[in-house]
Amino acid sequence: MKVFIVYAHPEPKSFNGAMKDRALLAFERAGHEVKISDLYEMKFKCTIDGDDFPARANPVQLQIPFEQEEAYHSGSTAADILAEQQKLIWADLILFQFPLWLYSQPAILKGWMERVFSSGFAHEVSARSDARRWFEKGGLRGRRALLSFTCAGAATAYEPTGRHGDINRILWPIHNALRYAGLDILPPFIAYSVLRGGDAARLEILDRFEAAMKNIEIAAPLGFHGLADYDDAHQLREGVVPMTAGQWRGSL
Amino acid sequence: MKVFIVYAHPEPKSFNGAMKDRALLAFERAGHEVKISDLYEMKFKCTIDGDDFPARANPVQLQIPFEQEEAYHSGSTAADILAEQQKLIWADLILFQFPLWLYSQPAILKGWMERVFSSGFAHEVSARSDARRWFEKGGLRGRRALLSFTCAGAATAYEPTGRHGDINRILWPIHNALRYAGLDILPPFIAYSVLRGGDAARLEILDRFEAAMKNIEIAAPLGFHGLADYDDAHQLREGVVPMTAGQWRGSL
Repeated sequence: MKVFIVYAHPEPKSFNGAMKDRALLAFERAGHEVKISDLYEMKFKCTIDGDDFPARANPVQLQIPFEQEEAYHSGSTAADILAEQQKLIWADLILFQFPLWLYSQPAILKGWMERVFSSGFAHEVSARSDARRWFEKGGLRGRRALLSFTCAGAATAYEPTGRHGDINRILWPIHNALRYAGLDILPPFIAYSVLRGGDAARLEILDRFEAAMKNIEIAAPLGFHGLADYDDAHQLREGVVPMTAGQWRGSL
Repeated sequence: MKVFIVYAHPEPKSFNGAMKDRALLAFERAGHEVKISDLYEMKFKCTIDGDDFPARANPVQLQIPFEQEEAYHSGSTAADILAEQQKLIWADLILFQFPLWLYSQPAILKGWMERVFSSGFAHEVSARSDARRWFEKGGLRGRRALLSFTCAGAATAYEPTGRHGDINRILWPIHNALRYAGLDILPPFIAYSVLRGGDAARLEILDRFEAAMKNIEIAAPLGFHGLADYDDAHQLREGVVPMTAGQWRGSL
């Protein structure tokens, strides 16, 4: 298996750093090939703006999806974006390792997604083509993605009746962004209480994580409604039973 | 009223730019004072990292909440962060104007939140103080926040049975990040189908937006469970009826 790890934490000595190292160890022991993008270490540009498109198709007004598609189809995608897109195409599995900050992925990882999962490459829903390429027809179809992240809070705070709300609801926007590009979503690995848990609990999490990554090849993806379940008004078709939470929820 | 507009789009000619201008017009006509942070124009640094803490309390390992609290309490918060925090303290209402990109706020706005809503200033849940300052005890309590954003997709795609899923579920992480700092949440203003809608529909959205902003002083906040509803295990107390979606859902 070819595994692409996208890692977003500024401190190598962090628990996220330790998790990234453990994943690498597990994958190498299992004989997988691994590539890593350490976004902070790369100082990855994380704001999408006009500088991304030196050959502007429309110099009067920056319309991002339009410029992304022009860049993709004319082969003028910026070099730092193209390098990441090539790693995605190479990979069978993409592992995102990050701290959950203010209920979502760090800005540097969000910006990486905005720039790298570009229109044209990851999805294309423009007037250019009749056929929409999105969700299971997206540019990264056939590949799997997995979120692995840390929470300062306790697991009970992220239950449906918990203070922070259901972790599956919190993850929905990130999972959907990945699905939009065609990726299948594996259940996330969640490290709760990492600040207050103590060393023994943290070591236990690392061991559980290593075991989960060792067997990741046989993990079943979460269930989501497919394109055929929706009508032209983007609504679930009559007769399609809405998925129960149990189908798109779960963790490793 | 004192209104702080936080605006995140790289193109002044964008529909988001037009919405920001309309909001400004409406607020000035209503006699409100307005401050604006145009994050792209300011080239606001949006990755949190060691550079934010030139006077590191712990030079061996970067632990962000710890360094944020040390900086806050010692008065050494970075100048660009401090300037934004002062605008937040000044404001009665904070309006966020942005495009919904890949199901969340742009990275530059997420990074602004990570840096500006710092531990110590916006919330403090550390060993330093016995009393946790978060949610309605957060540093920005008594102020209101409102998300105003554009979607390329149609409104039907963001219903509970829609292709992208319930817009309220998509907004949960952003709303919760604001609530965590003590802000009350007004119903969002959502501009759907902005790319394909045509000029007449876009002008109609701007007019509706102006009217909504004109009357924003009397808008009622969305309902969420308060601190007293949860026990020490972060679970809803026995006897507390979980809020129905109708209480925390809605838009202007």
